[in-house]
Amino acid sequence: MKVGLDVGGTKVHAVAVGDDNTIVAEARLATRTGAEGVVASIVDAITQVVPDGFVASSIGIGIPGQIVPGTARVQHAVNLGITDLDLGAALAPFTAAPIRIENDVKAATLGAHALRGGGDAMAYLNIGTGVAAGLMLYGSLHRGGHGIAGEIGHMSIDPAGPRCRCGQFGCIEALCGGGAVAERWSRPGALPIRDIYDAADLGDAEALALRAGIAQGIAAAVRLLVLSNDVDAVVIGGGVTAVGDRLFTDVRAIFEREAELSPFLRSLRFDDRMEPLPAASPAAALGAALVGVAELPEGALAHG
Amino acid sequence: MKVGLDVGGTKVHAVAVGDDNTIVAEARLATRTGAEGVVASIVDAITQVVPDGFVASSIGIGIPGQIVPGTARVQHAVNLGITDLDLGAALAPFTAAPIRIENDVKAATLGAHALRGGGDAMAYLNIGTGVAAGLMLYGSLHRGGHGIAGEIGHMSIDPAGPRCRCGQFGCIEALCGGGAVAERWSRPGALPIRDIYDAADLGDAEALALRAGIAQGIAAAVRLLVLSNDVDAVVIGGGVTAVGDRLFTDVRAIFEREAELSPFLRSLRFDDRMEPLPAASPAAALGAALVGVAELPEGALAHG
Repeated sequence: MKVGLDVGGTKVHAVAVGDDNTIVAEARLATRTGAEGVVASIVDAITQVVPDGFVASSIGIGIPGQIVPGTARVQHAVNLGITDLDLGAALAPFTAAPIRIENDVKAATLGAHALRGGGDAMAYLNIGTGVAAGLMLYGSLHRGGHGIAGEIGHMSIDPAGPRCRCGQFGCIEALCGGGAVAERWSRPGALPIRDIYDAADLGDAEALALRAGIAQGIAAAVRLLVLSNDVDAVVIGGGVTAVGDRLFTDVRAIFEREAELSPFLRSLRFDDRMEPLPAASPAAALGAALVGVAELPEGALAHG
Repeated sequence: MKVGLDVGGTKVHAVAVGDDNTIVAEARLATRTGAEGVVASIVDAITQVVPDGFVASSIGIGIPGQIVPGTARVQHAVNLGITDLDLGAALAPFTAAPIRIENDVKAATLGAHALRGGGDAMAYLNIGTGVAAGLMLYGSLHRGGHGIAGEIGHMSIDPAGPRCRCGQFGCIEALCGGGAVAERWSRPGALPIRDIYDAADLGDAEALALRAGIAQGIAAAVRLLVLSNDVDAVVIGGGVTAVGDRLFTDVRAIFEREAELSPFLRSLRFDDRMEPLPAASPAAALGAALVGVAELPEGALAHG
């Protein structure tokens, strides 16, 4: 029984997966932050999906940070309050199963690809606090020479756009990343993205501008992934997409306007290639379970 | 003896290549346009590189147009005055060798990769009349599901930029494609791009703006290829690069400014990854020779 965990800033989603990759148990619980909190959350989640008397054959973890190549160590997981943590070593006292870890977006890419039944060239576009994509080409995750393939959030698409934390202006992430958008929104609230969509529905000018920027950023990301790699599908998930239909309707409206202006863009069928990841999709946790049993690419290695 | 031909709008470059892929003969001649002219130019060029008494074992042709998948037929080769031409059938009376054809940018990508000794993930960025890239990933040309991978010329990077023939504003091609830039240059001349660089050197405001746009477009294309695919090298060629050092110096200045503003961009080492293709490089013709003996991917098939 393979276990996969998607460790997010707010929740841990754990799945237990059978030999045929079907999900046999599932749990969601709140993430406690900091190194100790994250380790405790992971142990609790594993306990919830592995029945008494069973043991996990492998554990895979998707986590929003940088994975030190060839280790089960994560760095700069800012949303989790982790600077540097050897997850393999920290979890070893609790389980005998081999542990592999992977960046959360890359794990979700593997999971989304498996849920689509494998096959075609595919991108997974994550619109969360930050924005990044994963690419499945020829049945494997395309990492590139330095593991940065898919870091398209920092492509500038408007020199007159908002300043990005990376130093550029008008990056895709500055326009549609949840962190950047929430920072520019002037009103407090626990769910700033949802508040922006609601205020925009009521005609609020500031909210309308931010909402238009989100759609502009996502449309550009889809365009970039199709023009560069001709992927057959761009699956889109991440925290910002929790606002649902309103977001995708805005993006579709951009594609429709473009298609009217440009036979070339119409021929690329961006709308057909865009696939919203359903709410509560197990893609990220399932992908983590697949990481757990993967051959050992750079960045995903058994501990010990 | 393999023969490769790069059929450009102004010249045909032919090479004969030995079994170890070394170039044993080379010829350059002016392209005659129109279907008959192109066929005659190709036949003349083959004659010049294949010694009397020898026969070509294969002929590969790189041509700036759309290749009908699975055929040796080219369409919409606008610069050659060709709407639709079955090159395989047209050349059959002149040679018994199998003929394969490929889009010129894709052929040049194969050639540039071979000249670098194979290996790493690489992009070839062609800044000609139009702008497009080819991607070598895992030792093969990455075409994507519909053969459009690398069409990054039509990524918009500035909504306030010049209108592109594709209908968008501020496309990479609208900024740095030779055709688009020459159209916006108000003064007549046989070598508009060179004239623009010369006028800019003298402080001409219109020329300075166009020249800055060329550098902006090329820098964005390099950024896009690195962020999306993490290629180790972006080899840059094409007609516009004939202005040489001045162009690459401008692009390097952009990368230097960026690196000062952004540790993230500095870490990507765009400057190190950018490799100007030397003037008179045989990359395109050599790549065409390799197309001639390639396994049969979509878009490159023996005639007959």
